Amino acid sequence: MTKRKLETCFSPALYEPHEHINSVVVIIDILRASSAICTAFANGAASIIPVGDVNEVKKYKSQGYLVAAERDGFILDFADFGNSPFNFTREKVEGKTIVYSTTNGTGIVNMASSAHTIAVGSFLNIGALTEWLIKQKRDVLLFCAGWKTKFNIEDTVCAGAIADKLMASNLFSTICDSTLAALDLWSLAHSDLSGYIEKAAQRTRLRDKKLDDCIEFCLTLDFTDKIPVMKNGVLIDNIL
Amino acid sequence: MTKRKLETCFSPALYEPHEHINSVVVIIDILRASSAICTAFANGAASIIPVGDVNEVKKYKSQGYLVAAERDGFILDFADFGNSPFNFTREKVEGKTIVYSTTNGTGIVNMASSAHTIAVGSFLNIGALTEWLIKQKRDVLLFCAGWKTKFNIEDTVCAGAIADKLMASNLFSTICDSTLAALDLWSLAHSDLSGYIEKAAQRTRLRDKKLDDCIEFCLTLDFTDKIPVMKNGVLIDNIL
Repeated sequence: MTKRKLETCFSPALYEPHEHINSVVVIIDILRASSAICTAFANGAASIIPVGDVNEVKKYKSQGYLVAAERDGFILDFADFGNSPFNFTREKVEGKTIVYSTTNGTGIVNMASSAHTIAVGSFLNIGALTEWLIKQKRDVLLFCAGWKTKFNIEDTVCAGAIADKLMASNLFSTICDSTLAALDLWSLAHSDLSGYIEKAAQRTRLRDKKLDDCIEFCLTLDFTDKIPVMKNGVLIDNIL
Repeated sequence: MTKRKLETCFSPALYEPHEHINSVVVIIDILRASSAICTAFANGAASIIPVGDVNEVKKYKSQGYLVAAERDGFILDFADFGNSPFNFTREKVEGKTIVYSTTNGTGIVNMASSAHTIAVGSFLNIGALTEWLIKQKRDVLLFCAGWKTKFNIEDTVCAGAIADKLMASNLFSTICDSTLAALDLWSLAHSDLSGYIEKAAQRTRLRDKKLDDCIEFCLTLDFTDKIPVMKNGVLIDNIL
């Protein structure tokens, strides 16, 4: 049986859309966009509209949408709240459609729009996500958001954790050096994940801005079984 | 004392020239361009002119220059020889100026032209190179050639090995996630370097083309104390 291809992309600057038209692309931006999106669906959000352009976000706000928006970790002044998963409480998001705009994460969701399927991954939904990926019978690309086009450790380690589960299924093969490196970094990180992530540059950035309270939470495995997927430009819970 | 900044770039697609105007940029393309360049100087080459454009290489050839040129591992038909370090023997290169053009390596040498200093690094010159880098009193960028814009394992592991020596000097600091990842991959690789590199995609590519005879050699530490550096568009041996 031909195995399915597993690949990893470390940065939006390295993404080649034409290579993934028939693949499932998993967006990984664990500090904090992809963790926040998983949390929103865990708390009953109806859908999330990812929007890159700030002016477009403002238009949605004027139409009465709930808006989560940040740039470089700071809440945009017209937004209802920012990018921490702790904002997406059941009280605020249950049954709602949220317009969501962040420095990196939402941009790459739109960048991957030519892929067959787009899903959102994090440690929070890793178990359900990998079981679902196995059922899709398609090649998989793990697409790390990085930090403003740069490689980052935390998304890579999460990609490595997902890759580890997919490779264990024996249904995938990889000759992608990025995937091999991500697997190796996960092998170093998994026994003390928060200790390992401690050294990451984004960890330092969030701490400097006192936005690091959610990091332990973002490293929690299997908080939810929700799998946010893109349908017609909107993220919905795949299980709905 | 303020420490010098150590950074790593995994791909030409991630290189930001304006960030490195005052830095030493070390070009790393160990399978095979940067290893071949180090070998050429070890065997007495006078200088190497890196040229990206094939037509320009042809012009040099018609002017009587010795030409080493390949694309995707194969020797260009008008060239004297290709990209294997084993071609750059003392008999062929001693005292000569070589025009050199490869799929990736020579392109990134030219891409980095706005840096303060460009040097060429490989396992073959790692000891001399790191001692020299320490003496330069400048920030350092380890610039991995990758494979056609993709991340690759072998250049990353070499960057990790160089970073390991530089960090041990206590003169450098890094908050660059790419450097931290390279250091960790080197920590996994160093006790069995050829075993580790075995899994790399480029290793497979070279084996498929029967061009893998030089890999063991390219993983040899401290074969030479030459440090190829760029002066006025030409690589020369810094010690000359």
